Amino acid sequence: MLTNDELAKWDRESFFHPSTALGQFARGEAPQRIIKGGEGVFITDRDGNRLLDGFAGLYCVNVGYGRTEIADAIAKQAHELAYYHAYAGHGSEANITLAKMVMDRAPEGMARVYFGLGGSDANETNIKLIWYYNNILGRPAKKKIISRWRGYHGSGLMTGSLTGLELFHKKFDLPLAQVIHTEAPYHFRRPELTMSEADFVAHCVERLEALIAAEGADTIAAFIGEPVLGTGGIVPPPAGYWPAIQKVLDRHDILLIADEVVTGFGRLGSMFGSDHYGLKPDLITCAKGLTSAYAPLSATIVGNRMWEVLARGTDENGVLGHGWTYSAHPIGAAAGIANLKLIDKLGLVQNAGETGAYLNAAMRAAVGDHPNVGEVRGEGMLCAVELVADREGRQFFEPAQGIGAKVVAAMLRRGVIARAMPQGDVLGFAPPLCLTREEADQIVEVTSEAIAEVLG
Amino acid sequence: MLTNDELAKWDRESFFHPSTALGQFARGEAPQRIIKGGEGVFITDRDGNRLLDGFAGLYCVNVGYGRTEIADAIAKQAHELAYYHAYAGHGSEANITLAKMVMDRAPEGMARVYFGLGGSDANETNIKLIWYYNNILGRPAKKKIISRWRGYHGSGLMTGSLTGLELFHKKFDLPLAQVIHTEAPYHFRRPELTMSEADFVAHCVERLEALIAAEGADTIAAFIGEPVLGTGGIVPPPAGYWPAIQKVLDRHDILLIADEVVTGFGRLGSMFGSDHYGLKPDLITCAKGLTSAYAPLSATIVGNRMWEVLARGTDENGVLGHGWTYSAHPIGAAAGIANLKLIDKLGLVQNAGETGAYLNAAMRAAVGDHPNVGEVRGEGMLCAVELVADREGRQFFEPAQGIGAKVVAAMLRRGVIARAMPQGDVLGFAPPLCLTREEADQIVEVTSEAIAEVLG
Repeated sequence: MLTNDELAKWDRESFFHPSTALGQFARGEAPQRIIKGGEGVFITDRDGNRLLDGFAGLYCVNVGYGRTEIADAIAKQAHELAYYHAYAGHGSEANITLAKMVMDRAPEGMARVYFGLGGSDANETNIKLIWYYNNILGRPAKKKIISRWRGYHGSGLMTGSLTGLELFHKKFDLPLAQVIHTEAPYHFRRPELTMSEADFVAHCVERLEALIAAEGADTIAAFIGEPVLGTGGIVPPPAGYWPAIQKVLDRHDILLIADEVVTGFGRLGSMFGSDHYGLKPDLITCAKGLTSAYAPLSATIVGNRMWEVLARGTDENGVLGHGWTYSAHPIGAAAGIANLKLIDKLGLVQNAGETGAYLNAAMRAAVGDHPNVGEVRGEGMLCAVELVADREGRQFFEPAQGIGAKVVAAMLRRGVIARAMPQGDVLGFAPPLCLTREEADQIVEVTSEAIAEVLG
Repeated sequence: MLTNDELAKWDRESFFHPSTALGQFARGEAPQRIIKGGEGVFITDRDGNRLLDGFAGLYCVNVGYGRTEIADAIAKQAHELAYYHAYAGHGSEANITLAKMVMDRAPEGMARVYFGLGGSDANETNIKLIWYYNNILGRPAKKKIISRWRGYHGSGLMTGSLTGLELFHKKFDLPLAQVIHTEAPYHFRRPELTMSEADFVAHCVERLEALIAAEGADTIAAFIGEPVLGTGGIVPPPAGYWPAIQKVLDRHDILLIADEVVTGFGRLGSMFGSDHYGLKPDLITCAKGLTSAYAPLSATIVGNRMWEVLARGTDENGVLGHGWTYSAHPIGAAAGIANLKLIDKLGLVQNAGETGAYLNAAMRAAVGDHPNVGEVRGEGMLCAVELVADREGRQFFEPAQGIGAKVVAAMLRRGVIARAMPQGDVLGFAPPLCLTREEADQIVEVTSEAIAEVLG
């Protein structure tokens, strides 16, 4: 076995890590952690630390670590047929079976599933399909995509444009012109403190209507949103938000993309967030929960009204010029099948709802009255604690103080991983869906201690 | 086991295949093939057909099918640690080790490797890094990317724009404005038949210089090219092309992206196409050959001059806002390690050169004089036969005749897979690098028979 020192050196000298301070990491000034294994909600690193992963990797290891059922399925597929492409009507038992299983679980009105590799490329596929759709319908000007500030939809050029967070735009010349942003459905950060949830929903609708009017509905193809805002702060929508938005979109013939990369396959305590909130999407983006990250796989589920036009389009124009070499990769498909079976077998959708509610209630009870806690919020197995300098006046901390990051670091020293969300001092929790009440208690206890350590 | 009929039905009803005629496939009018397994250069389908895969999937299964060494490595990784993210300095033994192995094999002057999932997302990463680089250098206008007509660089919105093929633009509103195209280095399709290779290189240089002059060098960030044009027709560059292009780029301070998704890790008989042709790239795109497609993984290798600026950029601006959840996925990394070891152990780089040369020579001997063969060309384990209506006058067939597709279909009936390249009547061959001379003979014999069947 390689020594830790040797690996650590190779790491600093060779490996360009995502979302990392490159210079600091190379010089050994930024932290390095080499993960060795995991079981359930725990991971272990090569220095012998055992950590409760309260963020499930990047909210993706939904069934938890070390599931031999999935590892065995991957191993079997790797030995039988690691790869063949899915172009021009080619398939394998694994990817066809998974297509069927996804469609069986999908909300009503869905027609087909396209498989990619990750959430970013699935949203890339979505925009291509939407532009194609409107070209086939003879509406060449109807192409802009409305996203929300604080939405997260990927890290590519167009998908990073959909994302409404400064970190993903700054110095990258994003967003590109084809993407425009509207109000985030983030009641805690409402422009006026006096706004009730209902007032704020009306405000969001008004802003959306104003944007559509300013741009012209005949230039707007689609609206993309996460059922619950994820990386933008883990923010469930205010009551009535989605029905009100859906009504606006319907009136202007604007397609709806439900980005369910985080929420798909159980995280909210429902199979899909679209079902949870009554959305009627035309496209559903899936990734993380589809395989619990055991192998890369994403999915774009295409609704009936789009599918009919796409099918007509290829009848008229020949094969669709879109595909990744690794679309519907058999290893990912095998992982997906085993993962969806395990979710059913272990009742994880139900547990996400029940233990998630327990986690949220316990968190609220433990830290909800702290003078620096502005809000504890969540839905299903998602929870966030938003920290503020002053609770009554809703004064935020200066970003440079890095309060959220400090609390997360204090939690890590106590053996629990939470995520300092990138914009604002928000502690994010998205544990594996198999979390127990005892493990939820541990997360809550450590959060409470860390807040006390950093903020008194 | 599922019956073939059941699977076939699920497939038609649920699965949105890439690069497929969607309506025809759904109605059962377009072919369907369910692949079951493979060994060496052969695949088998569920109807019992055994086919020699002369295109290695999508020129990606470089070590051949059924390699237990790679399947075992995937299985071991899946059981030990299927996933942890690589953000913020996190790694695993697998992805750190692979980073080191890639850097050991990379051409001179390379600094770090970033791992993604497929070639498209790697080129997406490249453009983001290039824009960031020029922003850090204070050159906000230097952002356009020059690609070549007939280049293939992906199927996303920006990467499909880099691609210079009609199929990937039509009805998708591509290319986007940030991408401009120059002459393809395709001597057989030179504008005037009298042009020698040297004349044609001078012509390509002149066209590039004219484009740079028209746009302004201070608006052009980078030039992207495959060492050998791939999906655009499998076209090795005319002698002297790359040194001449490199000189132009250097003079105008334009970065070079070598897209080695097809050529990286041995296909040309050299570890990299950049070494093969003496390119000095700033970024190298890798995918297919990195894992031989056993699991999805791509790589962007970053050269020294860019790395220094990127590191400075994050010193000044904080972490780089770029990453995929599945960047550096441990399953892909484990596959990559085993694959690179196997390439070394089996001497596949050398075999690609030697048996590739044999395949090309045998193909030329067998069909080179046929009146409908305009050119047999290739390099390493890449070979193409371009079909023409009239050899002397270089008259092409009408695309609607689908001559290339007909020959490929005739080959398939004889048990050999070739690819009808999407633009022009070009038969493409990119077999696994482990091809033997006997297997090369079989490809050549079947090609010859199929051409005779379709064209006499």
